[in-house]
Amino acid sequence: MIQTVAVAGAGLIGSSFGLAIKQAGFAGTVLGVSSERSIAAAMQVGAIDRGCSLEEAAAQADLLFLSQPVLAIAETIRRLDPLVKTGALVTDAGSTKRVICDAAKGLKRCQFVGGHPMAGKEVRGAAAADGSLFRDRTWVLTGTADTPLELEFRGWLRRIGARELLLDAKTHDHLVAWSSHLPQLLSTGLAAAIADTNPAAARVAGPGLMDMTRLAMSSFDLWSEILETNADEAGAALDACIAKLQALRADLPGEFAKASEFSKQLRKK
Amino acid sequence: MIQTVAVAGAGLIGSSFGLAIKQAGFAGTVLGVSSERSIAAAMQVGAIDRGCSLEEAAAQADLLFLSQPVLAIAETIRRLDPLVKTGALVTDAGSTKRVICDAAKGLKRCQFVGGHPMAGKEVRGAAAADGSLFRDRTWVLTGTADTPLELEFRGWLRRIGARELLLDAKTHDHLVAWSSHLPQLLSTGLAAAIADTNPAAARVAGPGLMDMTRLAMSSFDLWSEILETNADEAGAALDACIAKLQALRADLPGEFAKASEFSKQLRKK
Repeated sequence: MIQTVAVAGAGLIGSSFGLAIKQAGFAGTVLGVSSERSIAAAMQVGAIDRGCSLEEAAAQADLLFLSQPVLAIAETIRRLDPLVKTGALVTDAGSTKRVICDAAKGLKRCQFVGGHPMAGKEVRGAAAADGSLFRDRTWVLTGTADTPLELEFRGWLRRIGARELLLDAKTHDHLVAWSSHLPQLLSTGLAAAIADTNPAAARVAGPGLMDMTRLAMSSFDLWSEILETNADEAGAALDACIAKLQALRADLPGEFAKASEFSKQLRKK
Repeated sequence: MIQTVAVAGAGLIGSSFGLAIKQAGFAGTVLGVSSERSIAAAMQVGAIDRGCSLEEAAAQADLLFLSQPVLAIAETIRRLDPLVKTGALVTDAGSTKRVICDAAKGLKRCQFVGGHPMAGKEVRGAAAADGSLFRDRTWVLTGTADTPLELEFRGWLRRIGARELLLDAKTHDHLVAWSSHLPQLLSTGLAAAIADTNPAAARVAGPGLMDMTRLAMSSFDLWSEILETNADEAGAALDACIAKLQALRADLPGEFAKASEFSKQLRKK
């Protein structure tokens, strides 16, 4: 039974998870493993009860929730096996899954289920934590085994409003390259192109440009590791999209119709 | 003094303008020139008082507001000179300005000021009319002459919350190619690329993909004439953006930093 949860990386996602389960009725302890500043901010918003070291957290936690940047999650996992409580459940919120799930093959004393909540904001940090961040959002899980602890964790995901989706790591990375990494690269490319070539276009900015440059505000600190650990898939998606943009003028009516239909379907799910 | 306004094309923009000035206190008559169905919808939401023919509207209106598709506006303008009340003010809401301002050179019996409110929705029609659509939005004007009627019209723009920006038609078309037409083409290209290559990515759609595909829902009926009448500028912007996307991987940290800074500045205006 999950009595103690440890959140490693008390940023936006980790703190929002702590806050969400507390708001959904979790009455146990939520420990935080993070920088002193993040711990203070996460305690302030009520997302965690107290901070401690990874060693202490791993020794006590029934559920370890790793919400650091991707490569830091893989690094934490590599240190974790001797530290964890036997039979604990380790999960994560990393934006790519192959590197993390590969690292998790070394975990022998605990169960690992990879995770990726499809939620976020362009602002970072525990101060922006939001208990409803995962409501009606897809939460990808990899390598489930239906153990009691895992089913209990998935019960909490349901209670915080997330929609579970089971995918293997390879499929996940292939799909998010298109649904997440490609939109980010397009938004960054659009903003950088305007900044370089025609910055005065900002004078006639409308709501469309605002939508299309929101992702571009994201920090490269986060994206660096995401793009590095999914470079093959993200690169292929970008190349395919560039080819589509080059071909767009050959059949504008057809491409508009197809894009409109796809985008409307996307909102009917 | 503006006592009668005629809105030609009672769609989203025309009806929102009628509604906005009425809500801001305009006590005169607002005539509508549009299809029977649009007139009915615009009257239903209180955007216009009644429908009539272009001939009747032009004979009565002190202010003629043309909010049809771009080529239809140019066509209306070509018919207008013998029909208008002497000294009337004709303005428009067309998304490109060169073709329209060229056509307006034939107007001798009235004043013409080109206009373009940087506002919109992905839904069309008078039923979606919104009196606050122009609030805090840029409204481009071309070729102003500070006549009493024009100053009165610009007073109404202020009262409905729009921010006036004076630009010549060529500069306008150059800037909106980047701020409006390029974002539209990228959104369409993104949605079409996913639809063609990896439609299953919809299973892991997050808020980023939603932002980036909102414009893609737009109807080609509208965009056809916009892209046709600004093909040179929109094409150049698309080519420059494709080149930027191709070069992105050569300096991801630098491009992210530049794009982030530009996008944040855009929101400080």
